[in-house]
Amino acid sequence: MTRNNPVAPLDPAFIDLRSDTKTKPTPDMLQAMMTAELGDDMNAEDPTVNRLEAMICEMLGMEAAVFACSGTQSNQMGVRAHCLPGDELLIHELGHIAMFEGGGPAILSGVSCRTLSGEKGMLALENVRGKIRADDQHLCRTRLLCVENTTNAGGGHYYPLDQLTEICDWAHENGLKTHMDGARVFNATVAGGYSIAEVCKPLDTISICFSKGLGCPMGSILAGPKEEIAKARRSRKVFGGALRQAGIVAAACIYALENNIERLQEDHDNARFLAEQLAGIDGISINPAETETNLVFFDIAPEHGNAMQLSAALKELGVGIGAMGETRLRACTHLDITREQIEQVAPTVQKALQQGLEKYAGIATGPYARG
Amino acid sequence: MTRNNPVAPLDPAFIDLRSDTKTKPTPDMLQAMMTAELGDDMNAEDPTVNRLEAMICEMLGMEAAVFACSGTQSNQMGVRAHCLPGDELLIHELGHIAMFEGGGPAILSGVSCRTLSGEKGMLALENVRGKIRADDQHLCRTRLLCVENTTNAGGGHYYPLDQLTEICDWAHENGLKTHMDGARVFNATVAGGYSIAEVCKPLDTISICFSKGLGCPMGSILAGPKEEIAKARRSRKVFGGALRQAGIVAAACIYALENNIERLQEDHDNARFLAEQLAGIDGISINPAETETNLVFFDIAPEHGNAMQLSAALKELGVGIGAMGETRLRACTHLDITREQIEQVAPTVQKALQQGLEKYAGIATGPYARG
Amino acid sequence: MTRNNPVAPLDPAFIDLRSDTKTKPTPDMLQAMMTAELGDDMNAEDPTVNRLEAMICEMLGMEAAVFACSGTQSNQMGVRAHCLPGDELLIHELGHIAMFEGGGPAILSGVSCRTLSGEKGMLALENVRGKIRADDQHLCRTRLLCVENTTNAGGGHYYPLDQLTEICDWAHENGLKTHMDGARVFNATVAGGYSIAEVCKPLDTISICFSKGLGCPMGSILAGPKEEIAKARRSRKVFGGALRQAGIVAAACIYALENNIERLQEDHDNARFLAEQLAGIDGISINPAETETNLVFFDIAPEHGNAMQLSAALKELGVGIGAMGETRLRACTHLDITREQIEQVAPTVQKALQQGLEKYAGIATGPYARG
Amino acid sequence: MTRNNPVAPLDPAFIDLRSDTKTKPTPDMLQAMMTAELGDDMNAEDPTVNRLEAMICEMLGMEAAVFACSGTQSNQMGVRAHCLPGDELLIHELGHIAMFEGGGPAILSGVSCRTLSGEKGMLALENVRGKIRADDQHLCRTRLLCVENTTNAGGGHYYPLDQLTEICDWAHENGLKTHMDGARVFNATVAGGYSIAEVCKPLDTISICFSKGLGCPMGSILAGPKEEIAKARRSRKVFGGALRQAGIVAAACIYALENNIERLQEDHDNARFLAEQLAGIDGISINPAETETNLVFFDIAPEHGNAMQLSAALKELGVGIGAMGETRLRACTHLDITREQIEQVAPTVQKALQQGLEKYAGIATGPYARG
Repeated sequence: MTRNNPVAPLDPAFIDLRSDTKTKPTPDMLQAMMTAELGDDMNAEDPTVNRLEAMICEMLGMEAAVFACSGTQSNQMGVRAHCLPGDELLIHELGHIAMFEGGGPAILSGVSCRTLSGEKGMLALENVRGKIRADDQHLCRTRLLCVENTTNAGGGHYYPLDQLTEICDWAHENGLKTHMDGARVFNATVAGGYSIAEVCKPLDTISICFSKGLGCPMGSILAGPKEEIAKARRSRKVFGGALRQAGIVAAACIYALENNIERLQEDHDNARFLAEQLAGIDGISINPAETETNLVFFDIAPEHGNAMQLSAALKELGVGIGAMGETRLRACTHLDITREQIEQVAPTVQKALQQGLEKYAGIATGPYARG
Repeated sequence: MTRNNPVAPLDPAFIDLRSDTKTKPTPDMLQAMMTAELGDDMNAEDPTVNRLEAMICEMLGMEAAVFACSGTQSNQMGVRAHCLPGDELLIHELGHIAMFEGGGPAILSGVSCRTLSGEKGMLALENVRGKIRADDQHLCRTRLLCVENTTNAGGGHYYPLDQLTEICDWAHENGLKTHMDGARVFNATVAGGYSIAEVCKPLDTISICFSKGLGCPMGSILAGPKEEIAKARRSRKVFGGALRQAGIVAAACIYALENNIERLQEDHDNARFLAEQLAGIDGISINPAETETNLVFFDIAPEHGNAMQLSAALKELGVGIGAMGETRLRACTHLDITREQIEQVAPTVQKALQQGLEKYAGIATGPYARG
Repeated sequence: MTRNNPVAPLDPAFIDLRSDTKTKPTPDMLQAMMTAELGDDMNAEDPTVNRLEAMICEMLGMEAAVFACSGTQSNQMGVRAHCLPGDELLIHELGHIAMFEGGGPAILSGVSCRTLSGEKGMLALENVRGKIRADDQHLCRTRLLCVENTTNAGGGHYYPLDQLTEICDWAHENGLKTHMDGARVFNATVAGGYSIAEVCKPLDTISICFSKGLGCPMGSILAGPKEEIAKARRSRKVFGGALRQAGIVAAACIYALENNIERLQEDHDNARFLAEQLAGIDGISINPAETETNLVFFDIAPEHGNAMQLSAALKELGVGIGAMGETRLRACTHLDITREQIEQVAPTVQKALQQGLEKYAGIATGPYARG
Repeated sequence: MTRNNPVAPLDPAFIDLRSDTKTKPTPDMLQAMMTAELGDDMNAEDPTVNRLEAMICEMLGMEAAVFACSGTQSNQMGVRAHCLPGDELLIHELGHIAMFEGGGPAILSGVSCRTLSGEKGMLALENVRGKIRADDQHLCRTRLLCVENTTNAGGGHYYPLDQLTEICDWAHENGLKTHMDGARVFNATVAGGYSIAEVCKPLDTISICFSKGLGCPMGSILAGPKEEIAKARRSRKVFGGALRQAGIVAAACIYALENNIERLQEDHDNARFLAEQLAGIDGISINPAETETNLVFFDIAPEHGNAMQLSAALKELGVGIGAMGETRLRACTHLDITREQIEQVAPTVQKALQQGLEKYAGIATGPYARG
C-alpha cells in the first residue's frame, strides 16, 4: 500500500511504539521553533540553519555540514557525493539505504548495492574482506562502505568503536570511502558510552536524523569534507530539499541537540524493562540482553499466529507495535512514551495472546515481503 | 558559487526585493503552526497535512494531492509521474523546470527537455505545433507539456485562460499530458481574474509553491489524478521529501490559502507603482504596462554599467534587487514589503546611477551565464 | 513506428538515396573481412581491432581510440566520458546527439542538452558566447561542447577550420571539453581540403562512423585522451558494445580508411550534379552552391504537396529520397550510386511532380514531427 | 585493469580454455557470412537479420525477437523492457546480470538487483519464496525474476525443467516477469535433453548469445512478447546496438543454429574427460560428476598456491585456464578445442604443480575481488 488515503487520527491514549518517528514537538521545542531567527537558506542566509550546521561540525569534528529534510535524503546525498554511476557500495543486507529507501541508489545515482551479511545488522572485517571488485570492465567499481549505527532492522545494536574503526580503516586502505547512516547515532553514543566525535573519526560522511529519538518533527543533516558537502548541496537542490526559512525546523534540531540526547538513556531503560517483561510471556521469545538501545525486537511463537496478526490485535487493545517479519515484531521507545505506559505493554501482549489471534487469521503475509 | 559559506544576517532595514521567497512567517501564521494537530505523514497520519491535501483538491477540482518540500520537488515529482526515461517534455526555454532545477529531469527521470521560444515566457499554439516527435526509435517520445504560470524568467506574466486551454487541448489531442509549474499561480489568478479551478481544468497536474508570495517558510503541493499522485508519493519518498510531523508546515500553508491570496493584489499594485517610478529614471528602461504581477523587470542602459554592478550598488544602498541578465534586473514585491518601502526604491536606483557604477567595474559576468 | 516488422527486400534496380548507410560491402572489402586475423577484443586480443585503433590514433593524432558498434554508441560513450549526471552539453538544435539518439544523454548519462541555433547546422562564436551556466546550485554545470561535421540535418555542411578552432578554443578557455560527432568527418576533410589531424587538433574526442560514406556494414570509433577512452571502454561494456572477434568488422574499417576516403569526392560531385539538375525543376527549390558534400537538401513547393508525399511517389518510381521536414527532402549520394543512376533522379522527380501527388494526399505529417 | 592496452597475439598452439568466447569462425561460417543478403537493419530491411529473428521465434515459440550485439546488451534490453526505475529484480548472487555487466541495471535502468543464494548458481522455490517486496513507498517494487541457464559462475549447471517451471510459475502468480540469461542455453538443452521451446515456455523473455559455444564472432538475440521486444528495439538504438548491414553477422548466427548446436555434446564430453583427468591430480580437487556441460571448475589446494598463480603458470606452459576465485579455476571447452588438445591439459596442470608456483608468489589477489 502506497498510503494515498489519509488515516484517521489516533486516540491520544494509544501507546504508540511503532516508531520513534512518532514523537511530537514539546512546548519548549515549539517555543524554540517559533522564536527562531530566519532567512533564506537557499542562499545560506538563514542564521539558525547556519548555526545548526556550525554546531554539528563542532560536535562531530567534521569540516562541513548541510541541513536536509530527512534521513533518506541525507543518505542519498551522501551516496551521490561519493559515487558515480556504475559504482557499487558495500552494505549490510538489512541496511536502510539498501532496503528502505525505495531503490534510491539505483534511481538517483546509478549505484548498485552489494549486500552483505553480518551479525546484528553490523559488518565486521570478516564480512567485508575480499568484497571489493577488481578493476575490470565487467565489474562495478566498489567505492563506498555504508554502515548503520544503531542498526534498525538489524536489532537496535550499536557498533563497538574498535569494530567500526577496523572496517573503516580497511575501507580506506583499499581506496573506499565510508558513510554512516546515523539515523539513531545518538542512541549509539549513549548506549556505547563513546562520543559522537569518536564515532565520526573513521568516517568520511555521516547522516543524522532529528525526527527519530531526538524528537523533532522533521530534519536531518549530512556532515563530511567540504568537497563532498558542496556536491551534496547540489544534490539537495535537485532532490527538492533546499528550503527557504528552514531555520524554523533547524531551531528544533538545535533544541534537540541541547536537550534530548542524554535523555535517550530513559528510552533505553524503558526498552530493556519492556524486553524483560516480554521475556516472561509464554509464546513470546526474546533475549533481553540483546535490547541494547530503544528498539525491542521479539518473536511470536508460530502456534499463536504471525507477527502481523499480533500487531493487529495489539492495535485494537491500544498498543502500537509493528511487525517486522513473519514472526518478528519491533517495539520502539521514545520521548513520548513514559514508564507508566511501558508498564502496560507486556500485559497487553499477554492479553492479546490469551484472547487468541483467530480473529486476525486472514492476515497472512509479512509487512515487507510477499510471494 | 554553490554557496557553501554561511552569509551574514541582513540588516532589518534592508528592503529585500530579491525574491518573494524572502518572506518570513507572520505572528498569526506562526500561531497556526504552533497549534497544529500533528501526526506521522509518512503513514498519512498527520491530520493537518491531510486537511491541506483535501483543501487543495477541493479548491482545484483535482482528484488527489500530495504535500512536498519545495516547488522544485513537486515539479520533479510531476515530471516523474508522467514520464519514463527516454521521454521528452516541451517547455519554454525560460521555464523553471528546464533552467533552474539543476538538470533534474535528466538526472532523476532520464527525461529530455525540448525548449521552445514564445512571448513573455509563455507558449502559444504556434510555438508548440509540430513539436511532437514522431514515433521512431531515433527520437525521444514527447510525453508532457509543461507551462509556468506566472512566468518567472519570462517576466511575471500570466496565461490568458483561452491560450492555456488551447495549448492544453492541443496537447491532449496529441496524447501528451500537461503539467503546470504553478509556483506563483495565485499571482496569476489574482491578476487574471480567474479562479484556480478554472486554471486547473485543462491540466493533468499542477505544482503550487507556498514559500513565495503566499508567505510560508517552506512547502509545496502537487495535485492531479490519483494514479499520478500515487506515483509522486513514491518519488517523494525516494527524493527524501516524505516527512514526519509535516503538519507544522502544512498549517502555515492552510493559513496562507485562507489569508494570503487576495492580498497579492497589494504586491501587484506595489510592483506597478515601482515600475512606473522606474520608468521615469534616465538610464533605466521599462514598460510599466508589462508589469502584470509582482515581478518588476527592467534594464539598465549599458553606458551606465551592467545589471550585476547596479545590483551590487543597490545592495550597499540598502535595496536588494537581483540581476537576471547582462542588462536585466528583477525586483520582486511581497508580503514583507510595504508601500513606504517601495517608495524608496526608485530614488535609490536613481541615486546609484548618479553615483556611477565605476566602483563595481570588476563585476563583469552575468548572474546565470558565463563564457 | 518503431519498425518491428521486417520489410520486404528492395528491388536491386532501386536507386537508394535515402542514406549513405545503405551501402553494402564490396567484394574487396568482404575479402578483407574474411581474411582478418581475429581474437577476443573483450581482452584487447583481437589483432585487427588493435591495428585499427592504432591506425586511427596515428591518422588523427589522438592518444587512444576504442572501437564501437555504431556512431550513436561512440557518441554516447563520448558524452559519458566527459560528463557527470547534472551536466549539460552545448549543441546545435539539429545535432544528431540531441535529436536522433533517442534521448541518450538523459537516459544513459543524466546529461541535459542545451540546444543552440546557428547557420547551416554549425555553431559559431556568436552562437555559444554567454551560454555557459554560472556555478550555481540551480543550474546545470556546462561541461561539453558538441559539434557535428559534416552537419546532417543542418545540410551537409563542413566546418571551416578557423570557425571550428575558434569555438573550441573558446570552450577550452572556459573549462569545457569538446567532442565532434564525426559521423561524416571524411566528407568534411575531402570537401574542406584539410586533414583529419587538423580537424582533431582542437578536439578532445571525436567519433567516426564507418557505416556511412566509408561503406562498411557497421562499426565506429571514439578517439581521444587515454583517460577518457578508458572510461569509454567501460561504458561500451555496459552498453553491450564490447564484442569478441570484432576484427572481422574492423578489417572492413581498415579497408575503408585505405580505399574509400578519397573517392568521397565522387559522391560530392554526384551530389552537386543532382543539385544542379533539381534546380531546373519547377516546383523544386534548391541552391546548388549549398550542396557542399554528399547530402542534397531541397524543398517542394507546397502547392505540389508535401515532402512525405513526394518521397512516397518517388519510391514507387524506383528512387529512394527521404523526407526531412514538411517541405524538405534529402538525397544522399554514396559508394553504391553511380553517375548513371544519378542522371535518372531529377527526371524522376520531374515525372513525379507532373503526375501529381494527389494519390498520396492522405500522407500528411512530417517524418520526425507531429502535433 | 580496464584493458586499454592491446595484447600480443597468442601462439596458435596455445590451448585456450579461458572461455568459449575465444572461438573463431570456421571457413563454412565465413562463407555463409560472405554470401549473406544484406540490407539496412535500422529500417528492418536486412533480409538475413529478418530471417534470423523469424527462425528464433519459430524455434523458441516466442512472438518476437530482436538481434543484438552481445549477451550483455540483450540482457540489459530485457531488464529495461520489463522494469522501470525503482524496480528490483531477483537474481542469484552469481548471476551474470548482477555481477558481470558493470552495474548495468542501475546505470541504464535505475533498477536494483536483489541477490539470492541457491545451489549451483540456480534458484529454487525455497530461495525465492518471501523475497517479493510488499507494496510500500519505502521498498523497491519487485518486478522481474532473472535466471541463468547454464549457470556460468555457478558451475556450468543446467536448470531441470521442473525447477525452472516451478519458480517461473511462482513468479507469474505473484505478478513478476521472468527473463532467462540464456548465454549458454543450448549447452543446457543438449545436456538436459530438453528442447529450447520447452525452456522458453515459462519465460517472458530470453537472451541468447551466439559468440560462446555456438562459435560466432559476435551477436546475440532477445526474444519475447511483441510489446517488450518493441521496447527493446528502442533500448538497442539508445545503447548504440542498432546496426546497418548486420546480416553479415546474422548469417553466422543462422549457420550456428543450423550446425553448431548438437555438436556441443563433444564439448561436454571433452569437459567431463578433463574433469576426470584432473580428479586424479594431487593438489587439485574436483568432483567430475558436477561437470555437466562445457565448464570445468576445479580448486587448487592452498598449500600449492592460489588460482591466479596456477593460471599464470599454465599460461607459460601453453594452456589458458582462468582463475575464478581464490582457489577456483575454470576451464572451458569449445568448438576450437579438440580431444587431442584436451588430453594435454591435465598433464600440464600436473607439471605446473610439480614445478611449484613459487615463481608467481607475487600474484596475490583474486581475479574479480580485492580488499
